[in-house]
Amino acid sequence: MELIVYLAGQIHDDWREEIKSQARERELPITFVGPMEDHERSDNIGEEILGKQPNAVLKDEAASSINNLRTDILIKKADVVIALFGEKYKQWNTAMDAARATALQKPLILIRPESLHHPLKELSNHASLVVETPEQAVRALSYIFES
Amino acid sequence: MELIVYLAGQIHDDWREEIKSQARERELPITFVGPMEDHERSDNIGEEILGKQPNAVLKDEAASSINNLRTDILIKKADVVIALFGEKYKQWNTAMDAARATALQKPLILIRPESLHHPLKELSNHASLVVETPEQAVRALSYIFES
Amino acid sequence: MELIVYLAGQIHDDWREEIKSQARERELPITFVGPMEDHERSDNIGEEILGKQPNAVLKDEAASSINNLRTDILIKKADVVIALFGEKYKQWNTAMDAARATALQKPLILIRPESLHHPLKELSNHASLVVETPEQAVRALSYIFES
Amino acid sequence: MELIVYLAGQIHDDWREEIKSQARERELPITFVGPMEDHERSDNIGEEILGKQPNAVLKDEAASSINNLRTDILIKKADVVIALFGEKYKQWNTAMDAARATALQKPLILIRPESLHHPLKELSNHASLVVETPEQAVRALSYIFES
Amino acid sequence: MELIVYLAGQIHDDWREEIKSQARERELPITFVGPMEDHERSDNIGEEILGKQPNAVLKDEAASSINNLRTDILIKKADVVIALFGEKYKQWNTAMDAARATALQKPLILIRPESLHHPLKELSNHASLVVETPEQAVRALSYIFES
Amino acid sequence: MELIVYLAGQIHDDWREEIKSQARERELPITFVGPMEDHERSDNIGEEILGKQPNAVLKDEAASSINNLRTDILIKKADVVIALFGEKYKQWNTAMDAARATALQKPLILIRPESLHHPLKELSNHASLVVETPEQAVRALSYIFES
Amino acid sequence: MELIVYLAGQIHDDWREEIKSQARERELPITFVGPMEDHERSDNIGEEILGKQPNAVLKDEAASSINNLRTDILIKKADVVIALFGEKYKQWNTAMDAARATALQKPLILIRPESLHHPLKELSNHASLVVETPEQAVRALSYIFES
Amino acid sequence: MELIVYLAGQIHDDWREEIKSQARERELPITFVGPMEDHERSDNIGEEILGKQPNAVLKDEAASSINNLRTDILIKKADVVIALFGEKYKQWNTAMDAARATALQKPLILIRPESLHHPLKELSNHASLVVETPEQAVRALSYIFES
Repeated sequence: MELIVYLAGQIHDDWREEIKSQARERELPITFVGPMEDHERSDNIGEEILGKQPNAVLKDEAASSINNLRTDILIKKADVVIALFGEKYKQWNTAMDAARATALQKPLILIRPESLHHPLKELSNHASLVVETPEQAVRALSYIFES
Repeated sequence: MELIVYLAGQIHDDWREEIKSQARERELPITFVGPMEDHERSDNIGEEILGKQPNAVLKDEAASSINNLRTDILIKKADVVIALFGEKYKQWNTAMDAARATALQKPLILIRPESLHHPLKELSNHASLVVETPEQAVRALSYIFES
Repeated sequence: MELIVYLAGQIHDDWREEIKSQARERELPITFVGPMEDHERSDNIGEEILGKQPNAVLKDEAASSINNLRTDILIKKADVVIALFGEKYKQWNTAMDAARATALQKPLILIRPESLHHPLKELSNHASLVVETPEQAVRALSYIFES
Repeated sequence: MELIVYLAGQIHDDWREEIKSQARERELPITFVGPMEDHERSDNIGEEILGKQPNAVLKDEAASSINNLRTDILIKKADVVIALFGEKYKQWNTAMDAARATALQKPLILIRPESLHHPLKELSNHASLVVETPEQAVRALSYIFES
Repeated sequence: MELIVYLAGQIHDDWREEIKSQARERELPITFVGPMEDHERSDNIGEEILGKQPNAVLKDEAASSINNLRTDILIKKADVVIALFGEKYKQWNTAMDAARATALQKPLILIRPESLHHPLKELSNHASLVVETPEQAVRALSYIFES
Repeated sequence: MELIVYLAGQIHDDWREEIKSQARERELPITFVGPMEDHERSDNIGEEILGKQPNAVLKDEAASSINNLRTDILIKKADVVIALFGEKYKQWNTAMDAARATALQKPLILIRPESLHHPLKELSNHASLVVETPEQAVRALSYIFES
Repeated sequence: MELIVYLAGQIHDDWREEIKSQARERELPITFVGPMEDHERSDNIGEEILGKQPNAVLKDEAASSINNLRTDILIKKADVVIALFGEKYKQWNTAMDAARATALQKPLILIRPESLHHPLKELSNHASLVVETPEQAVRALSYIFES
Repeated sequence: MELIVYLAGQIHDDWREEIKSQARERELPITFVGPMEDHERSDNIGEEILGKQPNAVLKDEAASSINNLRTDILIKKADVVIALFGEKYKQWNTAMDAARATALQKPLILIRPESLHHPLKELSNHASLVVETPEQAVRALSYIFES
């Protein structure tokens, strides 16, 4: 039995690689999916495919159509969603991905520093599990396969 | 035919009253619901019902169980969700309520200043309609009942 | 027991009034809903609420957000959808409303002249009932309440 | 991870082959499905299987049962639906396939010339992405697999 | 709290009236719905609305579209379905209504003489309750409202 | 806006009346529903309606069909489920009602003495809210209606 | 792309083998599933697994639990259901399987002699396709894979 | 065609191994999944991953988040759920897993000694099949694959 796990959250450091390499070490039968991690490309994908847009709002709208297309397809395929929040990148779209996952009855693992407990209290309450580090998330994934 | 509309967003000024009074003036057959608007009470409701909690994280967890209970029941009853974002209150739980609404196939009207177009681009793309003022949202609601 | 019926189709003549008045005569406990029937207003509603748009595509996009918001809310409320097609107005959005209704498992009554049987064959096949006149549709609605 | 993509639209030129060959070049792990592309066979399949029908309406009804059986099975299997509209073939059944896809929460990519923006405005608004050429649609599919 | 109960089964004797009058006596807050009970009208409704059909198969198809339209709308409204089977009228469409009810997660009460236990064993197994008389079915409905 | 609340749990003392009277005092617009509270009648309802059964297993089976019919209809109508567990009555069917509620996405309020935290830990984790007294549950219901 | 097809209907002659061998000849990528075809075993499976039952009704109930368990699992796996009706075996459980399939939105192909058009008119109307021979059903399945 | 079967119930003896080895002997194409079977580890997994918790309730809450995460993912993957109840281990969470399975429309096989028929009567009534031994459950699974 294999699982697909969607990794939602900021794309500014290598937390996804940390999770993937730890899962590889544990030989977990998991396929990881997630957003485009090249930030500039993610912001420009609308114009890259649809051509120059008249203004910044429309450039964003074009990009977000294509990023949402990707996210919608991949979250639907996923068995579990992991969402990471950090002090530095307080993105609404991570909250959106996490919330859509719970509404679609996908189990959600939330990774956040304890310092963010107050602003994330409602989302934490909807999550299946709240942890503080990517490594704890991997250990929870690993536990699913242990007997 | 009557509609139920959930008003998601910050509880620090009277934007909900603005929407309700304009809807009353137009005699729209709408029942508005939403979160507890007394901020202090919303933060303390966990301890108010369950008693003193050992620490701040658990106080928040207790409060968010009860606030989520309220939100879950009321969003399920709603025909439309309106979510307001502003410069000042960049709350993840507004994004969460908005995203859950779209995943539950409830139409979403997003109110946000144009200055927030970039951080809200993915959520805007999932909304049925994006406007800049409460008054525009009311006019859209009104349009549903006009013939 | 009351029913809500959504009337999809062109807004250029008074076929909806024909259905409504016949239903009134038969005293059927039905609430009829449907799109904005003032064509010019329907095309301009985007700019009316959101202000002047930069070009025709964006004007259409603004209008269609608001028209779809209305349609989505009302079709979800409906127990049955009636869609009328005619020689003159071969609108894709009537096909869209009809198809969304069937995918949402709402029974669909299709009204079309026999001359359109070929281009409408797939949609007819998904409909619960295909008739040629509004009066036949009303008789089918009436039959639901007879004992 | 593989995807299944349904290609809805006219069957009079080779736009599907264009998409397939570009996807092959990019080595995308996609299985493409779609309607019967032999137009005459599609129109005659009812009589081919069920025998001579009494008249043109019944011939069409027989054919559309079998074409809808095919479409229903394949759209249900699909992860994404691409629908192409053109100046020449303004088919209602393309609109029907596209609309059913969105109602079943399948992401929809719409391909249409800009000249059709007005008649397609409501359907465009329900699509995840609107592009003008098959090549742009393939680039959006490709983007889903890039990291 | 009121309930809607659909009464599926043959239309050749007055078993429905028996159920309705007993429910009235017990003052149960139930609205009963069901198929057209005038057998001849039920068979002819297709031609009554759509006009003379070319042959018996098409006459039946026309009638069944309209009867299914009625049944589909009313079963969807129902909270419970009661299906009666008897020695004399071994109708497939009663089995169809009963089976659709269970697949739509509507509780099903089956009324049948014990002599039919073998041919109805699979359907009985899917029912919430199997009884032998309409009076027993009414007593079960009554029990729902007692405290 | 009114709510329907299902009260699951033992039927050996008057905890339901405690909840109802407190809700009445607070004038909450709530209709409470629940199982048959007359224990003997609940155990005998199968034989009462279907007649004497051959043995104890079949007597139980007959009774449980009718009790489940009641519960299924009423939980489906409910907006919220409250389940009470106590030291004395460790019933599996309370756990069943509570678990079915959560799987049907009905918010669940669990009432249990703290002494039962260990055996109920998984169910507690699925509940929206865990409290220790009926009075706390009423205060949570009341909070939903406050502004 | 492979399909799973459930073959519902009588188990007294070899119509399933006819379908399977024709599908093999056409090399269709289909897995066929269906009920236990050994009639005696199907009737006795309850006692075979659960032991001697007190009477015929309970023997049937035991058998039907296990046959329904099988059918429920396999129909849920199926992409299409084919149901065969014949003059000789007018089984309610074939109607039940067919009706459950349509209610679960599985496309249904009905095979029946024209002589049965009247008693099957409502079920025919819910089917995606009605044919008269197994060979016609195979040709329709084959058409799904042709390009 | 392969099936996934979830084995719910106590983790204090080797009943799962009994089922697995019998299924292996019969060469059934089944993947069995289930809870963590190391009891101590199951109780401590919360602290193992999240660190020392302040008290027993919070230790249990941490453990149950992770155990429920595992169960939710695996039951969703399962085609059938088998739940075993015994005299000795009267666990509520077995009832919870069984009840969630039925509410998610997963067929449920209940294994219980006849002595437990009374307290399990409601859950038995929701099960597809009730047996007394693991071996009977395996024979029912085997029957699904026989032809």
